[in-house]
Amino acid sequence: MAALETVLDKIDANLESALARLFQLIEIRSVSTDPVFAGDCKAAAEWLAKELTSLGFEASVRPTAGHPMVVAHAKADRPDVPHLLFYGHYDVQPPDPLELWETPPFEPRIADAPTGRQIVGRGVADDKGQLMTFIEAVRAFRESGGLPCKITVLLEGEEETGSPSLPAFLAANKKELEADLALVCDTGMWDRATPAITTMLRGLVLEEVVVQGANRDLHSGIFGGAAQNPIHVLARIIAGLRDGEGRVTLPGFYDGVVELPEEVAEQWRNLAFSEEDFLGSVGLSIPAGEQGRSVLEMVWSRPTCDVNGIIGGYTRKGSKTVLPAQASAKFSFRLVGNQDPAKIAETFRAYVRKILPADCRAEFISHGASRALQLPFSSESLSRASRALRAEWATEPVLAGCGGSIPIVGNFKTDLNMDTLMIGFGLEDDRVHSPNEKYELSSFHKGARSWARVLHALAL
Amino acid sequence: MAALETVLDKIDANLESALARLFQLIEIRSVSTDPVFAGDCKAAAEWLAKELTSLGFEASVRPTAGHPMVVAHAKADRPDVPHLLFYGHYDVQPPDPLELWETPPFEPRIADAPTGRQIVGRGVADDKGQLMTFIEAVRAFRESGGLPCKITVLLEGEEETGSPSLPAFLAANKKELEADLALVCDTGMWDRATPAITTMLRGLVLEEVVVQGANRDLHSGIFGGAAQNPIHVLARIIAGLRDGEGRVTLPGFYDGVVELPEEVAEQWRNLAFSEEDFLGSVGLSIPAGEQGRSVLEMVWSRPTCDVNGIIGGYTRKGSKTVLPAQASAKFSFRLVGNQDPAKIAETFRAYVRKILPADCRAEFISHGASRALQLPFSSESLSRASRALRAEWATEPVLAGCGGSIPIVGNFKTDLNMDTLMIGFGLEDDRVHSPNEKYELSSFHKGARSWARVLHALAL
Repeated sequence: MAALETVLDKIDANLESALARLFQLIEIRSVSTDPVFAGDCKAAAEWLAKELTSLGFEASVRPTAGHPMVVAHAKADRPDVPHLLFYGHYDVQPPDPLELWETPPFEPRIADAPTGRQIVGRGVADDKGQLMTFIEAVRAFRESGGLPCKITVLLEGEEETGSPSLPAFLAANKKELEADLALVCDTGMWDRATPAITTMLRGLVLEEVVVQGANRDLHSGIFGGAAQNPIHVLARIIAGLRDGEGRVTLPGFYDGVVELPEEVAEQWRNLAFSEEDFLGSVGLSIPAGEQGRSVLEMVWSRPTCDVNGIIGGYTRKGSKTVLPAQASAKFSFRLVGNQDPAKIAETFRAYVRKILPADCRAEFISHGASRALQLPFSSESLSRASRALRAEWATEPVLAGCGGSIPIVGNFKTDLNMDTLMIGFGLEDDRVHSPNEKYELSSFHKGARSWARVLHALAL
Repeated sequence: MAALETVLDKIDANLESALARLFQLIEIRSVSTDPVFAGDCKAAAEWLAKELTSLGFEASVRPTAGHPMVVAHAKADRPDVPHLLFYGHYDVQPPDPLELWETPPFEPRIADAPTGRQIVGRGVADDKGQLMTFIEAVRAFRESGGLPCKITVLLEGEEETGSPSLPAFLAANKKELEADLALVCDTGMWDRATPAITTMLRGLVLEEVVVQGANRDLHSGIFGGAAQNPIHVLARIIAGLRDGEGRVTLPGFYDGVVELPEEVAEQWRNLAFSEEDFLGSVGLSIPAGEQGRSVLEMVWSRPTCDVNGIIGGYTRKGSKTVLPAQASAKFSFRLVGNQDPAKIAETFRAYVRKILPADCRAEFISHGASRALQLPFSSESLSRASRALRAEWATEPVLAGCGGSIPIVGNFKTDLNMDTLMIGFGLEDDRVHSPNEKYELSSFHKGARSWARVLHALAL
């Protein structure tokens, strides 16, 4: 196994060319939710397969019903070392609203900020910059003689749309993808100076509802007062989903939600976390979730219900006195503990059907579902990774929760019986999913160094 | 005064050329709510001024802060006859959704339906076809020697957006526009065979609300559970506006709402009106308004609250786990009796501010307001017009209410102290404001004949 210092020096020496490679990847408009960009998603997959091939991997682009997967395998420089499965995603969120970007979203650039240099572009933090930290660590090992572990890479292109093709792909390629441990790089640091290992992930249920009233748009003067208005129906559905104390009202919704173990609760209480700063950074000041819970609980260990989009009737300038024939909304539920995604989707649909007036119909569209996940605190890999991160950042990593969902981690557990080590270098102010998304240059550089240390530690 | 039969024969002889003129007017895309079509609105005004000039009127296109007015004056063939002010509007609703039109909305055509021939095109029933019935009646008198009454024509281009420029225009041109009686042709018949004179009009308050939460769109994983979601806030606002019995909950909302006089209630009860057919024609079956009221009351004599449009967050295909920074909705209140539009707008805004979480802001945009209106049942003009319509249609006209609002009628009463005779030839199935808007050829032809009879009757 190459000396760790040699590998770290390689990463330092490669920084400029690593950035050029990352920029190429960001320039590919791999927006997965909009079919218009299907060709770009394929291009991103091909770019990554080519990159991995150049690093000695046996890499291939594998078709699915949606966007393709990239799968790549490489042997270690000696036998009897762990087999790791690294997962990342090359798809990105839509860049809308475009007018709020300071520079075009798919033309990456380096920006100078008071806190350091930043890389700006859609997907740089979620997840292209992050996955490239791992690939750059692999490159440094390769250029220093060989890999310390056996590595399989799995990159998908549908993470931002709930990974619809993933379960079938895992089932069909179980043998090929099984490993000792999965590594996922789609999470964040505690703060600019403190790394984190994420041990809890919220699950996700995505449900769209289209409410249909009359068989055509109506004049609100002629029919107003007598005809059902689907916007009102949707409003009642949304308003009734949470009670006055911020709790979700669906029957049985909290089944499977567990309270935090006391030692974790204690660690979280002792974190230097300012609720004021967290909300203040986006112009808010009052926690909007369940009363009696801390903000960290609200976003890490408690389930939610949110509407991510709504549309109905006339929405351009001016007014139009129309009663729309239909209105629709996109709902998302964040899950924790052992909440059952299928049961929650079913309960939600039953709730909507119950509220629905006899004159209206509802169409339901599922955009995916995944369970929440918890990594055992006693895991040996967790200890080794913690030590590796402490060596790079000179401070103890936080064992954190994560409000977002990474469906693959659930699939790794359920379908391949693998635990996942979640290490990432994003920051809270990265504007993930928002205009002007950025990734710290230090995250990119020290992230690659961190992965080198983690791979080295896991191989010992 | 020309013999009535001569005038009616002229109208019959002119039918083909009258249709050609109407088609020209429909081809002008005078959508008032969208600034893109401002030039088309001006073109429609100019077309009408030219048409009226050719009929011996002294006509002019008059600029306003919005779309221009057309004002035209013509003398009668003798003195001591009534001076009538005819009002119509040349603007039309947006044609969206375009994909539901069988033929392009601004390419009028004649369609054969089982019940007779129809003219199809945006604005043909609301209000271009209707206003042309009056102009064609005037043409027939002109070609038969002269006009039976002194006539002023006022055509506006902002009726579909709440007539924002109208009050100031009336105030500035009061002397020029005052007359003995106003005529408005923007209403409907009772059914295909039975004409109607509209004696009650609902008023309208149009309020748009933009709710702002965070200062940017947020990732629902990172902030979900802790940050206010403006879509939820809007949903609470909308859901709270009506109680379980369909009544509007704003304090004092029903102040000024009067119960129907018993004789009118009696007439309405005896009308052959099928609630099932009315709602069934648009795919509905259950009256959605105030419990204990008939559907005719709901749409003619009771006030309403409706949301005409809502938008927020991600609304294209697929899903996006975003907490939007803002969401907005367009509200309309239909008013009756003596409800005060200003007071209702104010009460609504106070209600929204009260519901609004401390962390959110609301921006209010008024899109206009007008009072409800009632024509005295004892009016002499009403009796004469009734007789004229009975002569043309061979049946008693219904003295109806109208759920839509025609703000000008309120302004005529308030600012110019004029009563208004509302006669129109639209039908319930005209698809006003909807795709494939149509106007019966019989409405267009017999409508012009009806106006000839009414003008003749008023001049006696």
